[in-house]
Amino acid sequence: MNRKELISHIKQKKSFLCVGLDTDIQKIPSHLLSLEDPVFEFNKQIIDATKDLCVAYKPNIAFYESMGSRGWDSLQKTLDYIPNNIFTIADAKRGDIGNTSSMYARTFFENMNFDSVTVAPYMGKDSVSPFLDFENKWAIILAITSNKGSLDFQKIESKDGKKLFQQVLETSRSWGTDENMMYVVGATRVEQLLEIRAIIPNHFLLVPGVGAQGGNLKDIARNGMNADCGILVNSSRGIIYAGNGLDFAEKARLEAKKLQVEMAIILSKI
Amino acid sequence: MNRKELISHIKQKKSFLCVGLDTDIQKIPSHLLSLEDPVFEFNKQIIDATKDLCVAYKPNIAFYESMGSRGWDSLQKTLDYIPNNIFTIADAKRGDIGNTSSMYARTFFENMNFDSVTVAPYMGKDSVSPFLDFENKWAIILAITSNKGSLDFQKIESKDGKKLFQQVLETSRSWGTDENMMYVVGATRVEQLLEIRAIIPNHFLLVPGVGAQGGNLKDIARNGMNADCGILVNSSRGIIYAGNGLDFAEKARLEAKKLQVEMAIILSKI
Repeated sequence: MNRKELISHIKQKKSFLCVGLDTDIQKIPSHLLSLEDPVFEFNKQIIDATKDLCVAYKPNIAFYESMGSRGWDSLQKTLDYIPNNIFTIADAKRGDIGNTSSMYARTFFENMNFDSVTVAPYMGKDSVSPFLDFENKWAIILAITSNKGSLDFQKIESKDGKKLFQQVLETSRSWGTDENMMYVVGATRVEQLLEIRAIIPNHFLLVPGVGAQGGNLKDIARNGMNADCGILVNSSRGIIYAGNGLDFAEKARLEAKKLQVEMAIILSKI
Repeated sequence: MNRKELISHIKQKKSFLCVGLDTDIQKIPSHLLSLEDPVFEFNKQIIDATKDLCVAYKPNIAFYESMGSRGWDSLQKTLDYIPNNIFTIADAKRGDIGNTSSMYARTFFENMNFDSVTVAPYMGKDSVSPFLDFENKWAIILAITSNKGSLDFQKIESKDGKKLFQQVLETSRSWGTDENMMYVVGATRVEQLLEIRAIIPNHFLLVPGVGAQGGNLKDIARNGMNADCGILVNSSRGIIYAGNGLDFAEKARLEAKKLQVEMAIILSKI
């Protein structure tokens, strides 16, 4: 999916919601467990219940990988089930030397047809570039993550007075364009969105941290949006585990709807 | 495998060689391609030909993941085939928020029974800690990688005059011990091994970069070794693709033997 299409879906659906499909077989409703592929069945019902309210789905690959080859089959079926007009993010946080990153890029873009992959920046340009060689595909680079450990290194100040995440943004923005790169920006301290927008005004930001990881939608929008919207806000557990009974998908829809209604109001003002 | 056992295998085999099983179906001898699982057959013959010469095997997970669920099956079969007295490294460069890193840890330690996993440090402590919660299992943290992009961020100097990789070592060494953490240290500039040993004298270092990525064994040993040996030196392509005919495994053995002979001389002097 290209940038123009993504923006058009955001406007049409009045939503910049990304639903995180972090599907843990330990946490899904027990009535699904007797089915042949409980993880896919869960995802299918979540997708049916939320696909008109969100513009992106983001399965975190760890949850599928932990189930071995069965998990990869569930992931592929989930991806095939997501309508083509919804942006898909393989939240894999991959990154390796060039020829190896190419393997990861082929895995997610060619074998599985994801629109984007999250990548870790520590190994630098040649670990990210292979993800930029595919038409209408995206690399989403970690800038600030929303976990406690993000304080360990991401905010270290260099001799030039730049925090590491600022350096990551400055250096990496020339590796691609705002048509094939986005950034992960955790929303635990929304004022940092201003520092980020000072460096990359145009790129889309993927903002985890609404729901279980904290973060306030209005603050995120005020500090992070640009004229093209420019943000995708993710919620995982807050939506997909809103209920745990036969009506889990309806409960998920209610939570997604709450966020989408708030997003529609925000979007009406830009 | 614990540290004592690893050191004992190094002494017994007179080797600190790690063979990288970066098995690419595009590069393996064509006579294997008609077999049911060419990747596993290739690995099996490489293991048979090198298992008395090396103390570790390191499959890079990207190569298996790129083949979908078949690749994961080849990886599992390979791991099951490696003798128990050889240290196994899942070169996966994973790292995510805590509960998600736990999933990755379970994948490689419980589902697959690897001894260790390589992890990326960018997301900080809680992205690495879940890998330290398993008895006799190891996290191998990226410090300096051997690719060109390692210059982009790993060597940025902080206000305190510390390069990022030095900060990674200093901060992370308290997360675990030299009994459950190692570090990846690319050998493109061997003098950096001295800077690293000043911070972590006791930890094992996994040194990629002999062979296709450059790097000289004697220099690495002089600057990187400690009284317990303390280094594992990896060679992937230089060994596994030494030949491409019916005798590829013998050719691989010859290359592994060259390195092991050099290592035996080096070990006799410590």
